[in-house]
Amino acid sequence: MVRVAVLAASGYIGGELLRLLLQHPQAEISVATSRKYAGEYVFKVHPNLRGITDLKFSALDASKLTDSVDVVFAALPHGESVKVVPQLADAGLKVIDLSADFRLSDKGQYPAWYAYEHPRADLLEKFVFSVPEINRDQVKGARLVSSPGCMAITTILALAPLLKEKSLGIDRDHIVVDAKIGSSGAGGKPSLSTHYSERYNVVRPYKPAGHRHSAEIEQVLAAMAGEKVKVSMSAHAVNMVRGILSTSHLFTSNPVKPIDIWKAYRSMYSDSFFIRLVRDKQGPFRLPDPKLVIGSNFCDVGFEIEERTGRIVTLSATDNLIKGAAGNAVQSMNLMLGLDEKTGLAMAPLHPV
Amino acid sequence: MVRVAVLAASGYIGGELLRLLLQHPQAEISVATSRKYAGEYVFKVHPNLRGITDLKFSALDASKLTDSVDVVFAALPHGESVKVVPQLADAGLKVIDLSADFRLSDKGQYPAWYAYEHPRADLLEKFVFSVPEINRDQVKGARLVSSPGCMAITTILALAPLLKEKSLGIDRDHIVVDAKIGSSGAGGKPSLSTHYSERYNVVRPYKPAGHRHSAEIEQVLAAMAGEKVKVSMSAHAVNMVRGILSTSHLFTSNPVKPIDIWKAYRSMYSDSFFIRLVRDKQGPFRLPDPKLVIGSNFCDVGFEIEERTGRIVTLSATDNLIKGAAGNAVQSMNLMLGLDEKTGLAMAPLHPV
Amino acid sequence: MVRVAVLAASGYIGGELLRLLLQHPQAEISVATSRKYAGEYVFKVHPNLRGITDLKFSALDASKLTDSVDVVFAALPHGESVKVVPQLADAGLKVIDLSADFRLSDKGQYPAWYAYEHPRADLLEKFVFSVPEINRDQVKGARLVSSPGCMAITTILALAPLLKEKSLGIDRDHIVVDAKIGSSGAGGKPSLSTHYSERYNVVRPYKPAGHRHSAEIEQVLAAMAGEKVKVSMSAHAVNMVRGILSTSHLFTSNPVKPIDIWKAYRSMYSDSFFIRLVRDKQGPFRLPDPKLVIGSNFCDVGFEIEERTGRIVTLSATDNLIKGAAGNAVQSMNLMLGLDEKTGLAMAPLHPV
Amino acid sequence: MVRVAVLAASGYIGGELLRLLLQHPQAEISVATSRKYAGEYVFKVHPNLRGITDLKFSALDASKLTDSVDVVFAALPHGESVKVVPQLADAGLKVIDLSADFRLSDKGQYPAWYAYEHPRADLLEKFVFSVPEINRDQVKGARLVSSPGCMAITTILALAPLLKEKSLGIDRDHIVVDAKIGSSGAGGKPSLSTHYSERYNVVRPYKPAGHRHSAEIEQVLAAMAGEKVKVSMSAHAVNMVRGILSTSHLFTSNPVKPIDIWKAYRSMYSDSFFIRLVRDKQGPFRLPDPKLVIGSNFCDVGFEIEERTGRIVTLSATDNLIKGAAGNAVQSMNLMLGLDEKTGLAMAPLHPV
Repeated sequence: MVRVAVLAASGYIGGELLRLLLQHPQAEISVATSRKYAGEYVFKVHPNLRGITDLKFSALDASKLTDSVDVVFAALPHGESVKVVPQLADAGLKVIDLSADFRLSDKGQYPAWYAYEHPRADLLEKFVFSVPEINRDQVKGARLVSSPGCMAITTILALAPLLKEKSLGIDRDHIVVDAKIGSSGAGGKPSLSTHYSERYNVVRPYKPAGHRHSAEIEQVLAAMAGEKVKVSMSAHAVNMVRGILSTSHLFTSNPVKPIDIWKAYRSMYSDSFFIRLVRDKQGPFRLPDPKLVIGSNFCDVGFEIEERTGRIVTLSATDNLIKGAAGNAVQSMNLMLGLDEKTGLAMAPLHPV
Repeated sequence: MVRVAVLAASGYIGGELLRLLLQHPQAEISVATSRKYAGEYVFKVHPNLRGITDLKFSALDASKLTDSVDVVFAALPHGESVKVVPQLADAGLKVIDLSADFRLSDKGQYPAWYAYEHPRADLLEKFVFSVPEINRDQVKGARLVSSPGCMAITTILALAPLLKEKSLGIDRDHIVVDAKIGSSGAGGKPSLSTHYSERYNVVRPYKPAGHRHSAEIEQVLAAMAGEKVKVSMSAHAVNMVRGILSTSHLFTSNPVKPIDIWKAYRSMYSDSFFIRLVRDKQGPFRLPDPKLVIGSNFCDVGFEIEERTGRIVTLSATDNLIKGAAGNAVQSMNLMLGLDEKTGLAMAPLHPV
Repeated sequence: MVRVAVLAASGYIGGELLRLLLQHPQAEISVATSRKYAGEYVFKVHPNLRGITDLKFSALDASKLTDSVDVVFAALPHGESVKVVPQLADAGLKVIDLSADFRLSDKGQYPAWYAYEHPRADLLEKFVFSVPEINRDQVKGARLVSSPGCMAITTILALAPLLKEKSLGIDRDHIVVDAKIGSSGAGGKPSLSTHYSERYNVVRPYKPAGHRHSAEIEQVLAAMAGEKVKVSMSAHAVNMVRGILSTSHLFTSNPVKPIDIWKAYRSMYSDSFFIRLVRDKQGPFRLPDPKLVIGSNFCDVGFEIEERTGRIVTLSATDNLIKGAAGNAVQSMNLMLGLDEKTGLAMAPLHPV
Repeated sequence: MVRVAVLAASGYIGGELLRLLLQHPQAEISVATSRKYAGEYVFKVHPNLRGITDLKFSALDASKLTDSVDVVFAALPHGESVKVVPQLADAGLKVIDLSADFRLSDKGQYPAWYAYEHPRADLLEKFVFSVPEINRDQVKGARLVSSPGCMAITTILALAPLLKEKSLGIDRDHIVVDAKIGSSGAGGKPSLSTHYSERYNVVRPYKPAGHRHSAEIEQVLAAMAGEKVKVSMSAHAVNMVRGILSTSHLFTSNPVKPIDIWKAYRSMYSDSFFIRLVRDKQGPFRLPDPKLVIGSNFCDVGFEIEERTGRIVTLSATDNLIKGAAGNAVQSMNLMLGLDEKTGLAMAPLHPV
């Protein structure tokens, strides 16, 4: 059994890590930290875990972790992780960081997107930005892994194969990403914005421009394309708790046929259990929809072509807390430990829900 | 009092017409037709009207209408309206048609978008496509009016002023419209797609390409721009009953400042009560959101600029059954009759709801 | 025009009072107070009123109100109202209080239910507890009025006629009231309980016993029955913003027929526009449902009889912010001013919503 | 591996059986029947199972089942099951029936509650009505099992221990059960009642009296009490897909203390993993709420006491498709096969969702 620690385990991503790891056949949770809830039962904060675990939160003490655990999942906020994780990394632990603090390989991006100078830029190249469906082998060999933002990974999984396939002629200057996300992506802290009476029924364009996940997406897509890529992203909060739909609008210089896009997807994803290509002829389930992946680690990917405007529309859907965060992190751990990537993660979505 | 008829009054748009007209100080509903419910009380189908009206549905008999009413609202399905409305138009009645059958001025568009040859192309130029905030004077003088599709009008109101303002340099080939709509836009007929257990919690990309409202939008925007415009539209069903958010992504050749966009909007909408320009610095209400217009005839319009990608994002929100359909039709009637366009329509949205 | 003040106008009930009064043909809002938002535009807090009013919040200064307004609506919290309202009452203003501070006529009830000794018990008998459908004449003659709690009025309207009708033989010791309410009843203050991710999808029994509205209900029902009545009430938060369904379970000593119950209702409500008796044979609208009254001042009332268990089930539904609060208060004002009680309140519900 | 068949596998309960059995370590699905979808892939109807199984639906052929499977789950409608199951029972198969056709041990109840004469009354005494937490030993020894209705089991689990404990003095004539349920309980067939625009936001009292599950509940409670028990049940549809909250109102002749109720529950449920007793002092999770069991086989049980009215309120919550149906059926199979009852069922609920 691998001994794991979950840092900042009282948040929604932390809670999902606990849930997944508690049902993981090879992992054992040794430590779950929370500044606010240290000393309290985990199930008081995560009521779903009542009856499942008697674990209690503890305060974070990085120096103690090095002896007591093998793998650390850090679900700390941006800017906090970078203060804690370097010590763990230096001590030789396996670390899977879920913040943005180690996602961007170019240190020059941090002041622009996150408003701080990165204090340990040397670590940036040591962290593998983990999207196993794209760079599985790299993840397998990694000790330090950074897991993408929820909208980033959902978008990347739809776009990477198409940017990689040069023959499609994707216009790299007019890539529009229009994302719709449930409330859990905003975390567990109450505010007027998240007050139920104000949040119910919304389609709220909370970040129409300048979304930070743009940087991660551009980083991966540029690597795929071998050239600079501009991503024009807008994010909307919609009326649900879990799930993301990322709708991407691409323009192509040449006419494109469905078979061309199928090929691009299949060539990259043929071995990837967690990608489901969804494009039926009819019915309410014919294209990706976050409703259809809730509770699972799947990312559903589909597309339409609009000849008249020279446009490809890709659709990708995840459960933002699973494939968008905790699930991808556990999948990464599986690979780092030499396990089947599906271990503990092969549950079907709930339907209907 | 003006005597009005509502054709196809048992649908959601028909019901909303009834509700608005019942509280209109100058209108009197003489006829409400329904093939399926002829003879039944209106409130059996529209339970909100219980205690408000004792009106009954009747079968549609076009020949009788000419004597008994002054104004006809036709909420018939596409392809049905064109079979009924010409007779009413020829008889000299005032007609406000809410179907697509008289929206496109170019008869050549009908086979492509609606799969039929228009049988009365002569009428197309007689119908005014009514967006009062854009062509109020034309509507005032009209006897025959066509009211836009709900997504079309919502999108048009955000985009028309920007396309008209040449100095903004909007790229007319890469206009992406990503719309999110509630269930009432799909009407009242049960199906697997609209079955609650399957429809709840969705972000369903039900029409990622080829949406028919593209044609109306392009028609108006081309008139504004004085040149051909391509609209790349995708439509999503989201988890709510009423409301549309239309997010449009525009690219500009030149850098654009907020003041430039404000000017374009204000110059077109300074006299338009039903347009609210919404762009606050902070808070959950800082940009348009359909939640904030429910129950009203408002269209909220706002925007953001992303310098990095040379993009303008416009946001526009309506209650799809009011400003997106019945409200715009009643507003059109008001103008046609020489009334204040706000008559019977000045109610505030409900909040919270 | 009557000059009115709304105290605590930044809350949801305050906002609804503003909305209703702004569209009231005989009222003019002179003052809207808010401690927190004094000096700010009303529409910054109530985004639905953007474009409708340029009113600003002001701090509450009771001494100034006596000269500047005719009617005061006090939407202050329990325990706060009692500190402010007596001064206004003593000064001769018309006051409509929406808190619990003047609802109970027996001062001895305040320590038990609200944990304070009432400082102005002399006022309790001067305030009329206003349910116009039950005591319209009293309200007409009143200068000081107390408007019931939202669950109280919804429940009372279903039960009062049945308790009054002695021949039904209602068992006064086993009256179970099981209420379901939307989030707006809990007000606008964020907390973990109202955090969207935690509040969405709930059926949360937030007050299974000891609900304070029990006291008001018992007070009215005892007056109807002429004897002591015990009300066993449980309150649940459900997944919606507006609306209450109150399900009451009554036991009778004798067999009861539908006609007996119809008679009891009709004899009390024949002149009451805002009561709709709803009991169809079939269909989704056959019994009261809060969905069907949203946006209106209606209270829908219906019932079923279960012979096997000797039970009557009554169902009553309101929009908790309208007939459950602000609408009933405005209706009370109408009566106090000698206006038609429907003035400004006759709008139909929205459907679907 | 046990070979199982799922009859009527295209419904929501059928789909949930498939989902649970696909992840069950000891079971193998040999047959999934559907009249309507015979020949189609299971994942076309249950989109959550895409990528999980290549199983296809087949037509039901009872004679073939006897050779090819060991256990049959019958999720057929009431009245249909009784036509098919006897043949399977006679052939010696293990059968777990999820319809009402074998739930009532008294054949005289069928005409009254289900409007048919039971054609195989001899089988009624052979079927064990399975609530493992109450009659685990009986289920272990059974070959034929009937699984309760979703509201029945949810209610029974809250009430059985209290009725059994005579010292509590529960009044058996005034037991009120007020149940709230999500849409999935009504199945997958579209209708006006389940049309999203009409079903969203409801609190619809769809069965205020005469609910059929009353019969099952009375049957079990009478067995507990050793005397006849009357259950006064009302069922409401609320705005969610999964979940039931059953609120039961009991009256006692003597004053009751919390410890008395705790004892009754603990004495019956001390060995029952799937019962969680939930009664915290504070917080949004302090009492059972269906939101907190979604995706799991848990039944959360809690209570409050109202001294003033001599009332106990019990709250019990399940995921109606799992502990309310498919999960309880699989748990029953586990026991029938001598497996740990938790096998394949120990997953934690999703939170938040």
